[in-house]
Amino acid sequence: MLHRFTLADTFREHRRSYPDRPAVVDGGPPGSPGAVRLTWPELDDRINRLAGALREAGVGWGDVVLWTGQNSFRIIECLGAAAKLGAVCCVANWRQSADEFAFVLTDATPSVVIWQESEVGDTVRAAREQVGGELGEDVRWLQHDAPDDDPDSYEAFLAGGEPVDPADWADPVQPDLADPVLMLYTAAFTGRPNGALLSHHAVLVQGLMMANLQRIDADYRYLNSGPLFHVATFMTTLATLVMAGTNLFTPRVDAEEVCRLVQDEGCTGAFLMGPTIEQIVELNAPGPDGTRPWDLTSLRTFRGSPEWNEMITVDDAPWAVKPAGFGQTEVMGMLTYNAVGGDCTGSAGRPSPVVRVRIVDPDGVEVPPGETGEIVAAGPQVMTGYRNRPEETTRRQAGGWHHTNDLGRREADGSLSFVGPKGRLIKSAAENIYPAEVEGALQSHDAVREAAVIGVPDDTWGQSVVAVVVLHDGAEADEEELITHVRERIASYKKPRTVVLRTEPLPRLGWPIDYETLDAEYGGGGYPGSG
Amino acid sequence: MLHRFTLADTFREHRRSYPDRPAVVDGGPPGSPGAVRLTWPELDDRINRLAGALREAGVGWGDVVLWTGQNSFRIIECLGAAAKLGAVCCVANWRQSADEFAFVLTDATPSVVIWQESEVGDTVRAAREQVGGELGEDVRWLQHDAPDDDPDSYEAFLAGGEPVDPADWADPVQPDLADPVLMLYTAAFTGRPNGALLSHHAVLVQGLMMANLQRIDADYRYLNSGPLFHVATFMTTLATLVMAGTNLFTPRVDAEEVCRLVQDEGCTGAFLMGPTIEQIVELNAPGPDGTRPWDLTSLRTFRGSPEWNEMITVDDAPWAVKPAGFGQTEVMGMLTYNAVGGDCTGSAGRPSPVVRVRIVDPDGVEVPPGETGEIVAAGPQVMTGYRNRPEETTRRQAGGWHHTNDLGRREADGSLSFVGPKGRLIKSAAENIYPAEVEGALQSHDAVREAAVIGVPDDTWGQSVVAVVVLHDGAEADEEELITHVRERIASYKKPRTVVLRTEPLPRLGWPIDYETLDAEYGGGGYPGSG
Repeated sequence: MLHRFTLADTFREHRRSYPDRPAVVDGGPPGSPGAVRLTWPELDDRINRLAGALREAGVGWGDVVLWTGQNSFRIIECLGAAAKLGAVCCVANWRQSADEFAFVLTDATPSVVIWQESEVGDTVRAAREQVGGELGEDVRWLQHDAPDDDPDSYEAFLAGGEPVDPADWADPVQPDLADPVLMLYTAAFTGRPNGALLSHHAVLVQGLMMANLQRIDADYRYLNSGPLFHVATFMTTLATLVMAGTNLFTPRVDAEEVCRLVQDEGCTGAFLMGPTIEQIVELNAPGPDGTRPWDLTSLRTFRGSPEWNEMITVDDAPWAVKPAGFGQTEVMGMLTYNAVGGDCTGSAGRPSPVVRVRIVDPDGVEVPPGETGEIVAAGPQVMTGYRNRPEETTRRQAGGWHHTNDLGRREADGSLSFVGPKGRLIKSAAENIYPAEVEGALQSHDAVREAAVIGVPDDTWGQSVVAVVVLHDGAEADEEELITHVRERIASYKKPRTVVLRTEPLPRLGWPIDYETLDAEYGGGGYPGSG
Repeated sequence: MLHRFTLADTFREHRRSYPDRPAVVDGGPPGSPGAVRLTWPELDDRINRLAGALREAGVGWGDVVLWTGQNSFRIIECLGAAAKLGAVCCVANWRQSADEFAFVLTDATPSVVIWQESEVGDTVRAAREQVGGELGEDVRWLQHDAPDDDPDSYEAFLAGGEPVDPADWADPVQPDLADPVLMLYTAAFTGRPNGALLSHHAVLVQGLMMANLQRIDADYRYLNSGPLFHVATFMTTLATLVMAGTNLFTPRVDAEEVCRLVQDEGCTGAFLMGPTIEQIVELNAPGPDGTRPWDLTSLRTFRGSPEWNEMITVDDAPWAVKPAGFGQTEVMGMLTYNAVGGDCTGSAGRPSPVVRVRIVDPDGVEVPPGETGEIVAAGPQVMTGYRNRPEETTRRQAGGWHHTNDLGRREADGSLSFVGPKGRLIKSAAENIYPAEVEGALQSHDAVREAAVIGVPDDTWGQSVVAVVVLHDGAEADEEELITHVRERIASYKKPRTVVLRTEPLPRLGWPIDYETLDAEYGGGGYPGSG
């Protein structure tokens, strides 16, 4: 009690310290009658009601409340209720197919699913039909955009709970800082996605760091215009929440609606990608009378084209100046920041000040600066594990370190560079060779369009390195030149022994290279661990 | 392991991420031959040696290493070694008397005492003599400013340790985030001071918050020119440490030496109080040729007089603009910040975003906004307890909340005001009345120089409120006017029933009012809990 502070306490404290300030504003769909606005006490009362109703519906410690709709202030309510119950709020990708949704439904094993008719209803229904009885009888389905008097609506469900904080129940619930509270699915480069479980400690620590680097305070008004199933949007949502700023929601990104909300609500931040910015620049160009349709000057954001910079306020916060680093869902956002630690030579900057980072070889032994290895991490922001994936979780947490499955390097100045996804390992003369590193060196040659590196069995060395290279149309480079190019860039033992030039594109599984087909074609095999 | 990050890891990580950057610079005494400069790996190697030597000397979990010297980079080494051993580094007030030192020596029950001959030696020796055998035979005394070849010097002791991290020992040591690592003595208004034990979690969380509000990053160079036995200096030291900035040390504040260090070392921050700033303004006034003796423009600090602002860089960081709030040693610095939470009406701003704060009555029940009660807090920054004070610790942690012993009030906008030290409680008609609050209301009357409030036994109400007031020379105010003045400002039941005008000053014990003498003089008594 004396030293406890969980995400649940964020809501409890803010209701006391900010009784009149807006916690969430929801613009609703474009053209909807009016915005939902809740102060911190109003939000916390609703969270308490929702927690009570969820408890009645059987939701307890570690149970999942699955959100399968677009952006809404109700996501914050689900997160708050989960935080108070020791449960887990999972925000699923509403843009995925029915098949993908069906996988998530069976994988997340939710106790409650909150779904949305508008734009997502057909997919959710199809997925629900597909999984049929697999989910069990007692899963509660709640439609969040149904009329309030529909007994299966989110609002009717919430209204059924008492506005009493779970900490004040006859049998009080008090989750721990280390308990998971948020689940986000990782991108699935190949195979199925994994649900990364993120603790109270992870979301609070990342919230504090992002608040620092983005200069977020209680006056910050963040427009959640990026997808909340993605950590890139969510990390700023959390920073805004932690600092008692205002989170504003719009169901999905829509350039005109973004302009309207920024102007009408005085948003100071928003999640915007290149294409939306281009649309806004066009939409908001000055008319014949020289005036712009929208006043976006409250928006303090990344520098862009001269036209963009003229209509917004260019942000000089560290994160806005250097919005890069190395991160992933499993660490609740960023592990390293270019905005931390001053100037550096590494591409990914330096670690957040409360995380431990090592570059290790396949045995988990730290490698010296300049050598490539897997990036591993430890600290409060690291996920507690993947839901329903005991084996993968054990593999990723070997030796007490979170294995990122990505390769990196410490530079001489102590900063970090991201090398590429880890993929397979080639072992030649007891040396570890990561294809991604060799491929990166090959691709830095002007003539190279595509490069893939495989290992072929070698009686003397175990394996030897073979590069399969596709050149740009009309470009020329021979084997010797390409091998020399690699040797000049990385350790000599990593250079290809053979370079095969190929005219047709590399085989791919979606975007990732199909290494198994390449192995079959070029005699690859003998990989460590492959027997 | 997976989620661990302690203060010990700060040193381990920084040595990897900042191999060439300066961790500490020590200017030494004014006029000393040259500065000590250590990079992060050099500092961490020395910390490992010190930890090894301390372990050899029998220092283990919870044991105290007591620093009784002036500011030095070695304080950071002691803190780092304590962090790695699960031990506690205590920085004692070097300006205290031999009697006070003697009290601290017996109270802190240190395993190792590090002392300084220069300026402090006589006092330490006298205190050591005074406590005689009380400290036990096996306390190790190390002089930190002795020649390196003196076997009882700090340097000889440190050199005797192996540069191996305690985490890598055959029997590895891995303290917990919740373990105490730093001990600072509180101010003793009356009676003896208490050693507040502060955990790894407390120093890290406060470091992150202060780094945010002071805009401290790896390029920050903080001159430790305030006393490190005081949390006001130390909280910025920790923020600088956490963010991998550079901590610079000077034994004690000296205006000319501060100027030299700021100029020569490019300090970006310093701990400076009003009198030193005035001295610097005088020292650094432009000469007949219009040039200043020192270039202090690297110093980014609080706005002051026009002369001061001209020679430094005025800081616009939130903490520099609003350097106030409510804090105390027991919470490792600030509990609330005026720089957090936007505009507000309360004098102390709003809480740090990862602390819980309540205003409670003597039974520990939260009081509504507008009412005065004790400020209590919970969260990672709260002390683990007082060393060797089981009873006082239990009292201060009643109900799982840290009791600050200070009175405060929630304003209608949720912000907090500091009312005064808690002191005694008067109980009248079952209502709680804190003398400090009534005294504050009386003192806001122009005619009042001093006011003290006591309770006198009352058959009907239990106690009734009597105010003893001293007016300014020549000022006039009668009983009725003063009672009306109070009633207009605070709840009517708190107003004095009687006001006694007194001509001689109030009796005091040093600064604090001597309430027992007043009780004897004016019939006070019947306080709750007094039997």
